[in-house]
Amino acid sequence: MTEVDQAASPADTQDWGAPRTKVVQWHDPMITASAGSGLSGLEFLRAIRDGKLPAPPIAVLMGFHPVEVAEGRVVFEGTPDESVYNPIGMVHGGYVCTLADTVAACAVHSTLPAGVGYTSIDLNVSYTRRITSESGTLRAVGTIVKPGRRVAFCQAEILDQGGKVVATATSSCLIIPGAEAAGA
Amino acid sequence: MTEVDQAASPADTQDWGAPRTKVVQWHDPMITASAGSGLSGLEFLRAIRDGKLPAPPIAVLMGFHPVEVAEGRVVFEGTPDESVYNPIGMVHGGYVCTLADTVAACAVHSTLPAGVGYTSIDLNVSYTRRITSESGTLRAVGTIVKPGRRVAFCQAEILDQGGKVVATATSSCLIIPGAEAAGA
Amino acid sequence: MTEVDQAASPADTQDWGAPRTKVVQWHDPMITASAGSGLSGLEFLRAIRDGKLPAPPIAVLMGFHPVEVAEGRVVFEGTPDESVYNPIGMVHGGYVCTLADTVAACAVHSTLPAGVGYTSIDLNVSYTRRITSESGTLRAVGTIVKPGRRVAFCQAEILDQGGKVVATATSSCLIIPGAEAAGA
Amino acid sequence: MTEVDQAASPADTQDWGAPRTKVVQWHDPMITASAGSGLSGLEFLRAIRDGKLPAPPIAVLMGFHPVEVAEGRVVFEGTPDESVYNPIGMVHGGYVCTLADTVAACAVHSTLPAGVGYTSIDLNVSYTRRITSESGTLRAVGTIVKPGRRVAFCQAEILDQGGKVVATATSSCLIIPGAEAAGA
Repeated sequence: MTEVDQAASPADTQDWGAPRTKVVQWHDPMITASAGSGLSGLEFLRAIRDGKLPAPPIAVLMGFHPVEVAEGRVVFEGTPDESVYNPIGMVHGGYVCTLADTVAACAVHSTLPAGVGYTSIDLNVSYTRRITSESGTLRAVGTIVKPGRRVAFCQAEILDQGGKVVATATSSCLIIPGAEAAGA
Repeated sequence: MTEVDQAASPADTQDWGAPRTKVVQWHDPMITASAGSGLSGLEFLRAIRDGKLPAPPIAVLMGFHPVEVAEGRVVFEGTPDESVYNPIGMVHGGYVCTLADTVAACAVHSTLPAGVGYTSIDLNVSYTRRITSESGTLRAVGTIVKPGRRVAFCQAEILDQGGKVVATATSSCLIIPGAEAAGA
Repeated sequence: MTEVDQAASPADTQDWGAPRTKVVQWHDPMITASAGSGLSGLEFLRAIRDGKLPAPPIAVLMGFHPVEVAEGRVVFEGTPDESVYNPIGMVHGGYVCTLADTVAACAVHSTLPAGVGYTSIDLNVSYTRRITSESGTLRAVGTIVKPGRRVAFCQAEILDQGGKVVATATSSCLIIPGAEAAGA
Repeated sequence: MTEVDQAASPADTQDWGAPRTKVVQWHDPMITASAGSGLSGLEFLRAIRDGKLPAPPIAVLMGFHPVEVAEGRVVFEGTPDESVYNPIGMVHGGYVCTLADTVAACAVHSTLPAGVGYTSIDLNVSYTRRITSESGTLRAVGTIVKPGRRVAFCQAEILDQGGKVVATATSSCLIIPGAEAAGA
């Protein structure tokens, strides 16, 4: 086997058929980021949920959004389309991680007053079931396990449209008092 | 505080300025998936690297690609743009997870013969440094820690353009003998 | 600073006072292991709980035992004494890990028929609160998150005597059909 | 099936043969803990290694000890005996976790000046190979991945006497400035 490969010739690529196209539109993320520093976590997340602040770009790119925001518990929904598929025709694990990181971190953020920030330390995801286009709209529930003055612990559970658990996750977040908001 | 919020009025949204736009184009992921079942992991990953098979959609969506593929070790590069930002003006942790999951799983895949598949069981990511647009092109290195007949263990390290570690990750993959390839 | 250090002199060690002593007694672990291969997980765990099979040595060494055994859910209790303290006067994290690994793996085992084994792939523990002698008797609850033919996912929660969560954990186990029982 | 089981009768227990006995002796852990607050992490760990401070009880209980202590890297060795066996005749995963937690946390501690404490946030262990009495003396190497003012990241690798990796682990520690030392 040789490492010296030519780029795919036009003849090759013709066989792939017409490409699929997705157009993603978002607003300057600093609009939301700047507004966040003056709001409690709960106010901030509700402003995004209600469209009063622009959604973060990655939420548009990957197609998910908050549907419930309470103190210590948030729910996001997203319907993975073909644009998040991996090389073998399934939804990439990174889509699941992104959802899990989002709801776990937002569950922590929802407990913080204005002027207190946080940053994610880690994320541990268990992939309990494969996800395909048949999985439908995913529901990601993030809850706080233990709030803290210095470290907060949170978790996430992702369900398919039939209510089956497709992933679970745990995460810990560093709390940054007196900092500008720092989220996930 | 009230839960009854109106949708953002046109007046509000005018203040957000012109939206930014990204057009993503990919090919039917089943082209690559189907080709994969007849190739060893190494052949499969090199065919994608060399453009002989279409890149998986998520790699196009998030902007990363393989630059080195050896048995038990793969390197991907990606430059996160604003479309993967989170609500507070930084690169979302999900981008990091997606890169880490990809290179860890591909390091396992690179050790498998044709006809042997795998699926990721879990991914554990440590976020060691924040990532912003100044982080530049990220380099993600996936290596196999221990191959196995039933379970393989792998890890990932992600470096910014200055060579600083921005994340580490570990993962385990279930090996599926006699199965069609199942990747991450 | 020099690496050349003398061993502690008798004068030094005199200051440490009388040592504390603990005598640990267990039976040949192969008695229990051999009996296990002919029992379902539920039967096996109940036989240990009821004293019909000798407790595994580590359970004696660290002082914990099963109090509830149901299909997919087990509860162990243990009261950490000074013998599991770390260098700074607290209960070592390893005590928590041992309890968490035990109940998570046993929750999986409790779902398996005779002749089907398992082995733990990983364990992820979050230390949510410090544990000292004031924490009292710990209650560790292991539950199955998703059974599986090839991989099962489980979790653990450890509570102090006041009911506060001192640790959470997740784990995945490889299921080994037709194997002799392989536990954690 | 009934939950009502009698305790094992004397006749049953006679069949188990003579119990094995281990006597564990340690000193008041507060001697070491108190001395720690006035020492740098490196000085503290070296004092324990050199027998100038009593070993922590759990190290005696489980039979491991430091053999190398440098800034950012520590090595412990331990030979698991039958007293750490699980119900099926293997070394319990908790032994591995305890070693991994110890060396990972000590790698962080070794970088801290006197008066700065830490506490472990989490521990993620991958069990890459089964451990039995044939594994011999285990060598556990803890290294710091990224020091930090607020959070430090560390990892551990455990090798059997043949040099094979039996487990890997990652951990994060909260740094507590101006605090009394808090270790794992």
